[in-house]
Amino acid sequence: MKKLINHVDTVLAQSLDGFVAAHADVVTQGADHQFVRRRALKPGKVALISGGGSGHEPLHAGFVGHGMLDAACPGQIFTSPTPDQMLAAAEAVDTGAGVLFIVKNYSGDMMNFQMAAEMLDKANATVIVNDDVAVENSTYTTGRRGVAGTLVVERIVGAAAERGDRLDALKALGDAVNKATASMGVALTSCTVPAAGKPTFQISADEMEMGVGIHGEPGRRRVKLTSADDIAAELTGAVLKDLSLARGQEVILLVNGFGGTPLLELYVMVNAVQKVLAGRGIKAVRHLTGSYVTSLEMAGCSVTVTAADPAMLALWDAPVHTAALRWGM
Amino acid sequence: MKKLINHVDTVLAQSLDGFVAAHADVVTQGADHQFVRRRALKPGKVALISGGGSGHEPLHAGFVGHGMLDAACPGQIFTSPTPDQMLAAAEAVDTGAGVLFIVKNYSGDMMNFQMAAEMLDKANATVIVNDDVAVENSTYTTGRRGVAGTLVVERIVGAAAERGDRLDALKALGDAVNKATASMGVALTSCTVPAAGKPTFQISADEMEMGVGIHGEPGRRRVKLTSADDIAAELTGAVLKDLSLARGQEVILLVNGFGGTPLLELYVMVNAVQKVLAGRGIKAVRHLTGSYVTSLEMAGCSVTVTAADPAMLALWDAPVHTAALRWGM
Repeated sequence: MKKLINHVDTVLAQSLDGFVAAHADVVTQGADHQFVRRRALKPGKVALISGGGSGHEPLHAGFVGHGMLDAACPGQIFTSPTPDQMLAAAEAVDTGAGVLFIVKNYSGDMMNFQMAAEMLDKANATVIVNDDVAVENSTYTTGRRGVAGTLVVERIVGAAAERGDRLDALKALGDAVNKATASMGVALTSCTVPAAGKPTFQISADEMEMGVGIHGEPGRRRVKLTSADDIAAELTGAVLKDLSLARGQEVILLVNGFGGTPLLELYVMVNAVQKVLAGRGIKAVRHLTGSYVTSLEMAGCSVTVTAADPAMLALWDAPVHTAALRWGM
Repeated sequence: MKKLINHVDTVLAQSLDGFVAAHADVVTQGADHQFVRRRALKPGKVALISGGGSGHEPLHAGFVGHGMLDAACPGQIFTSPTPDQMLAAAEAVDTGAGVLFIVKNYSGDMMNFQMAAEMLDKANATVIVNDDVAVENSTYTTGRRGVAGTLVVERIVGAAAERGDRLDALKALGDAVNKATASMGVALTSCTVPAAGKPTFQISADEMEMGVGIHGEPGRRRVKLTSADDIAAELTGAVLKDLSLARGQEVILLVNGFGGTPLLELYVMVNAVQKVLAGRGIKAVRHLTGSYVTSLEMAGCSVTVTAADPAMLALWDAPVHTAALRWGM
């Protein structure tokens, strides 16, 4: 295992300390690394809280700030945060308008966020993200997994919360964005969880895992590595099949790297995915390309498409200022 | 070789096409992929042009836009662009105030940019970036290499050009920022140039290359992989030794990933570097953390420190809107 760390037991805490130091203009953190929160809260705004296992950086702490999340609870690597963390975060960032939890559909996260929601003595609701069309049920999941589409949900709902939308409206919007969003990914290499010290899965030098999850969970099938065009056709095809879009539909296209794939290759994928979309008459009117929802140093990428109406696009475009996503301010 | 590509001969062109499609609000490109240019030129502004071998994305095309570069000339992977490209870029983006070339100190780039400068029938000057303190002379370089500090030069000089500074002032500022900037990097793995099809260098599972260049060139020494704290101490120590800063000096700290290292680890490095800086009484008042000046999928990172006076900090903070760096707009 080759990593820039000091000890497997201190990776997360030291990474969070570095993150908070680097982005002190935007965030601060709770005691014992329980949560990262927005430095300047907005009174009367519904508080958006997400979280999940670490190892997917910049998700979620990198999306805390104006126009996105109010707090993120980092679990240990690929492990759900605890209800205590979520309750502490809610206490810290609620300003009286209630709390919306945004939760990726993994059994551990679902159980812990649900427990926190039940224990929380404040108005709250939960949006569950399950955008991964690769498989129904998986290693850590009943139903579909929540993956890179979580970013899109957090951004659009975050913008609506910033303008003052109420809890029930945000819950409905979050559900709608999740429904309009589909993703699928491919891995070329495994990743290594520091505490495990060895690769999560074995894969041959000429193979890829089609439909991989963001913890290296198995996807649809293990096949020979093929061309970017073929990979783009399969990923985008699966996503579009799920969404059943009409020709002329406007979409947000997120080509997301898993951590070990350079931008040079991600843009080759953007080019390839664009051709597939154009062939179906789908218009990518907004783009986001980069490693935003990662699996440690795994090589590979995912394709996320959100069918966006003009209201969603306006929210996507609204000012945002987080560590990892920033525009308009 | 496991890469998301179609063919080694089409990687660069297809990646540029994807890049330009994804960032069509900011950039457009010249014929035959000769250059990427700012979509909306600013009449009367000195044109800033950089470029170099590809494989370092988002450098340089990712830094084209308001407050940074007017054009970037991408060479083949790890190969200098040609004088023809630079001349075509200059013709496309000069609006009468002259051209400033920003060139990383590699023999091929130096020769070709110098040839372009001599052939160019417009007022022009050149800033040479040579921030890498690891070694004097190297595989592709006479003198010190230009590495991640190039980003800092492009940002600060880009902001000054945007406010209307003249060519001679920008040349002087660029030289001053370069002098105030020092970098050093470490590699944990090699990278593979697509056309070569095999790793640029061999490295054992327990070794690192201390002082590596951004093409995988040898650095100071090949040693056993050690802790993030030890690595940070050596990189930061070398950088600070070069800069000879007084206690209380304010600096910009760039912890840069080489392409295969995830943010989780880069922030562990930020935390470690911060401790070294604090121990010397140096204040990191601006941070940039991420994979900005890469070496394809190489794992590792570099530390860049710029001793910044208040005028430089104000320019750093000025609005910028490029594909890879954006704030204030």
